[in-house]
Amino acid sequence: MVMATYIIHFKPVNRTGNCHYNQSVLECAHYLGIDILGTCGGKGTCHSCKIRILSGVVSDPAEIEQDFFSRQEIGEGWRLACQTLPEGNCTVWVPSDSMSSNRWIDVTESPVLDVPPEPMVKFYELELSPPSLSQPQSDVERVRSGLLMKYHVTCERVDFSLLREISNKLRSLNWKFRIGVHDDEMIAVRPAEARSLGMVMDLGTTRITGFLVDMKTGQTISSQSMLNPQIGYGEDIISRLASAFRSSANAVKLHRLATEAFNRLALSLCSELDEDVTGIDEAVVVGNTAMHHLFLGLPVAQLSVSPFIPTVASHLDIKARDLRLRISPGACVHLMPIIGGFVGADHTAMLMATEMDKVEGLQIALDIGTNTEISLVDGGRITTVSCGSGPAFEGGHIKDGMWADSGAIEKVRITDGQVKYETVGSTPPKGICGSGILDAIAQMYMAGIVNRKGRMSVCHPRVRTRDNQREFVLVSEEEREGAPAITVTQGDIREIQLAKAAIRAAFRILLQNAGHTEEEVEKISISGTFGRYINIESAVLLGLLPSLPFSRFHQVGNAACMGAKLALISASKRGEAINMASEIKYLELSHDPDFMKKLIESSNFEDMGKTARLH
Amino acid sequence: MVMATYIIHFKPVNRTGNCHYNQSVLECAHYLGIDILGTCGGKGTCHSCKIRILSGVVSDPAEIEQDFFSRQEIGEGWRLACQTLPEGNCTVWVPSDSMSSNRWIDVTESPVLDVPPEPMVKFYELELSPPSLSQPQSDVERVRSGLLMKYHVTCERVDFSLLREISNKLRSLNWKFRIGVHDDEMIAVRPAEARSLGMVMDLGTTRITGFLVDMKTGQTISSQSMLNPQIGYGEDIISRLASAFRSSANAVKLHRLATEAFNRLALSLCSELDEDVTGIDEAVVVGNTAMHHLFLGLPVAQLSVSPFIPTVASHLDIKARDLRLRISPGACVHLMPIIGGFVGADHTAMLMATEMDKVEGLQIALDIGTNTEISLVDGGRITTVSCGSGPAFEGGHIKDGMWADSGAIEKVRITDGQVKYETVGSTPPKGICGSGILDAIAQMYMAGIVNRKGRMSVCHPRVRTRDNQREFVLVSEEEREGAPAITVTQGDIREIQLAKAAIRAAFRILLQNAGHTEEEVEKISISGTFGRYINIESAVLLGLLPSLPFSRFHQVGNAACMGAKLALISASKRGEAINMASEIKYLELSHDPDFMKKLIESSNFEDMGKTARLH
Repeated sequence: MVMATYIIHFKPVNRTGNCHYNQSVLECAHYLGIDILGTCGGKGTCHSCKIRILSGVVSDPAEIEQDFFSRQEIGEGWRLACQTLPEGNCTVWVPSDSMSSNRWIDVTESPVLDVPPEPMVKFYELELSPPSLSQPQSDVERVRSGLLMKYHVTCERVDFSLLREISNKLRSLNWKFRIGVHDDEMIAVRPAEARSLGMVMDLGTTRITGFLVDMKTGQTISSQSMLNPQIGYGEDIISRLASAFRSSANAVKLHRLATEAFNRLALSLCSELDEDVTGIDEAVVVGNTAMHHLFLGLPVAQLSVSPFIPTVASHLDIKARDLRLRISPGACVHLMPIIGGFVGADHTAMLMATEMDKVEGLQIALDIGTNTEISLVDGGRITTVSCGSGPAFEGGHIKDGMWADSGAIEKVRITDGQVKYETVGSTPPKGICGSGILDAIAQMYMAGIVNRKGRMSVCHPRVRTRDNQREFVLVSEEEREGAPAITVTQGDIREIQLAKAAIRAAFRILLQNAGHTEEEVEKISISGTFGRYINIESAVLLGLLPSLPFSRFHQVGNAACMGAKLALISASKRGEAINMASEIKYLELSHDPDFMKKLIESSNFEDMGKTARLH
Repeated sequence: MVMATYIIHFKPVNRTGNCHYNQSVLECAHYLGIDILGTCGGKGTCHSCKIRILSGVVSDPAEIEQDFFSRQEIGEGWRLACQTLPEGNCTVWVPSDSMSSNRWIDVTESPVLDVPPEPMVKFYELELSPPSLSQPQSDVERVRSGLLMKYHVTCERVDFSLLREISNKLRSLNWKFRIGVHDDEMIAVRPAEARSLGMVMDLGTTRITGFLVDMKTGQTISSQSMLNPQIGYGEDIISRLASAFRSSANAVKLHRLATEAFNRLALSLCSELDEDVTGIDEAVVVGNTAMHHLFLGLPVAQLSVSPFIPTVASHLDIKARDLRLRISPGACVHLMPIIGGFVGADHTAMLMATEMDKVEGLQIALDIGTNTEISLVDGGRITTVSCGSGPAFEGGHIKDGMWADSGAIEKVRITDGQVKYETVGSTPPKGICGSGILDAIAQMYMAGIVNRKGRMSVCHPRVRTRDNQREFVLVSEEEREGAPAITVTQGDIREIQLAKAAIRAAFRILLQNAGHTEEEVEKISISGTFGRYINIESAVLLGLLPSLPFSRFHQVGNAACMGAKLALISASKRGEAINMASEIKYLELSHDPDFMKKLIESSNFEDMGKTARLH
């Protein structure tokens, strides 16, 4: 059977590509690297992937679209990209509202350890006399002797791709060059003045973040973030693993999407600075176990079912060419060690960056995301658990949820029945991000609109019923000048309850196993983008975090990225992470008979009297 | 411009493939791995590539074919494959006479050192308990601990291709398996009972020889030889380098031909024994510098012009997948070190196998081929030279020359004007191989038919003139029942003179440089297929070898292959070869002002009175 393929042209980005039969405009866009938002994972519920069909034939509007768009909008070609299947060649308009903004991450906000650069890839400057009949050594031997004589460095191996170009490079550079050495292997020859670049990628389930680093100075010179294009195959780890498990074609596709995302990120980071991607001499990649395995193209069958065994947990150095990565052909990708189950290298990186193992006293490190990892550090000994917490904290499964992009409501206050909010970028509100929904529900709880069990009261002027469920109006249609209201639904509250209960239950089991109580914890470090922006008071009030004095909570930002960067620029920090990971004890929760019990216990909000005493 | 492509079907081998516009049937056959003979390199002079066109349109017979075939034969479709260009789809009959016989090499004839097997790739048998919730280590960690506990072996790295299959393999083998370790890297998981295979390839300019070795016992279990398919791009090193230098497409093609030849050889060696090529866990490849560089796909520009600099001389271990070799994906190919100029790893292997560095006294090691390498060993110190000696000793450029296949005249005696000869396999004569032509000319010289300067006399009943040149009839038309006579022409004698003069001149310069005379040489080891079968007396008489007592000459057979095999099965022998190569002094002859002088001095045959005194 030959499948039809259509040519889709995207405006205003002016990118064109093929769309296969039964593929949505959203999938096609993600495949082409066009970052259309799609927080709900293609279900049609987040409405973030609005597009307009300018020409061409597409599938009829789905019910979900007919409900969302006005008849006039439908007539004008407005559609949801995730619901629209091309049935011929099309031209599609993507409004900027529907685009992930790829905004720069303010890396200076993250706590960076002051570590002197000592990268794995070292560069040595050489100027050699050209070969002659009286000095007929081979090119490699000539470089090798130069390194030995000038720097007392011995270098046994030569990367095969460098071997194929070294003779021509040395001659085109007139024997004046810098040679890059990784361990005892020569990996690159560059002009004497070229800078050496390193790259970091935090491969998150939902978002991918990347840094470009000057390896000599250790400075981050460019940073970007993008949607994980695998999202079309499921929003959370479990559904992606299931998808890969179901068909090997899906597994290959998920692998390719991850490596292509790496390539796009590299290209994008470099083009900002007019650098060439082949100037990247090493990359460090971190991610949870599922992301780690999919990125490497490892089988996931044994990881998807109990007892959830990874193929490999220890650190790896893989040649970029073995993964079809388009950085320097001799470069390696360093995969930091994963811990166990779904607790991946991002958590290792976070623990290393926060130096939690070096501090006395009982501590917790918490990385909240679609999957949440929690480590208990008890006098240097680390025990880690992991739990699926869903995409709610990243705006997923929330009716008006969105990623923390401009226009996302990130802070909410309800005073005397009046709603006050702040948006990212202080622009008009478009939806609610994770910290916003947490704030909103906490405020509703404080105002008595929601009870301890999460049930919404009907007795409030901003509470109404739509589509058979109660919702609290944050921004009304009037306030949005006719656009649909932004609301928090009863369903949204249930999503948040489920997510926070899972995290809190894991938290409790971890402590119980170690024979400690929540009150004994002296310090809680919260990492991740969501963790950076949440209001701790709201989180405590809703019972996501335990009722402890606020001074014990530390929001450490994207510590995974920071840890990965430290591993990139510092061989000793890399070694520390390797040692640390090998010492960590992983606790598998999925078969813990207590987990379900604790989950149910943790679904209610906090006793308000108790939290009040903390102030 | 779109080039036409025709489909050619070869019978009786029943192989089909594409033939491009302007490609000869011979080139097409070699590309498809059909070993049609072509000793003259496609010039139409050796007549060894006879084929019959069964159907389809081809180019008109060339003059050279009209001279060789009868009108009736041409009418029946007989042609020379090298002269025939398809002009449409064709079916071609390849008679067995035109096929290289791929005969088994009698490896037992070669002197093999008695070396205990200690291969680089070691296999360890393990039986592990499957993972469980209480033992949730990763698969790699589980194997790693097993190795450590049972064998005290630590294994840091895992080959990336093994990483991708290890989880499934371990499970399909129910955790009872053998793990292959190369250095500190896991490279293969196999059933407990599987044997570990190694492969050796001697990549000669004209012929390629391969062994399959059982790594545990060190025994050669299969061996084969084939024509080097690069021959279509020139018979000698210089013309192949020139071809690669002229166009990068040629360079890529020459590289691919070499790696595809490796794959064909591996497949053929394994299919003899019903083994799978992916069971080959390491390969050792030796060849001269040009073959070495072309096999690896290294640039040859700097190697082709003075001062003839190789990219790399030291040993290399390259992942098979980086060269698209189809043996075990985790396997390495070990390239033994090359010496300098065109003196390659085959010579290193030969020196190591013959243990010449371990013997006292002045010795010479000589590997005669299209390129000839000569080493002088003086109390452990080794100096090496190389010279182009052309394909004459392999039957090339000789009117009735052929490879030492069945029917080749390999020994000649002329007594009382009568010619007696022996053929390979004692079958009716088809042509003359290297040792046969050497014998024939030496006997003609002894019988006074040729003088010291190589000029053929007219005063002999078997000497006649054809095509304006004198020729000596070895086997007449009558003796061949109407088939063309097999003769030695004046031109053949000049070819042999040129080849032997080059070798002898190099020999003399090598000794002169070291301050020694030929008479002082205590032992001369002659390797290579030609070297194994030559009559030493004939070689001395013609001045190819110096006039020394015959007891000083040792014919050591395919010592290059033996050395490569030793490097495959013994890590210490491999180490010895690496050390030896790094100590060898290479002498570049091409700019030696004495070389041309010595070449002219060496063109005459030996003074017969002088050689007679040796008996």
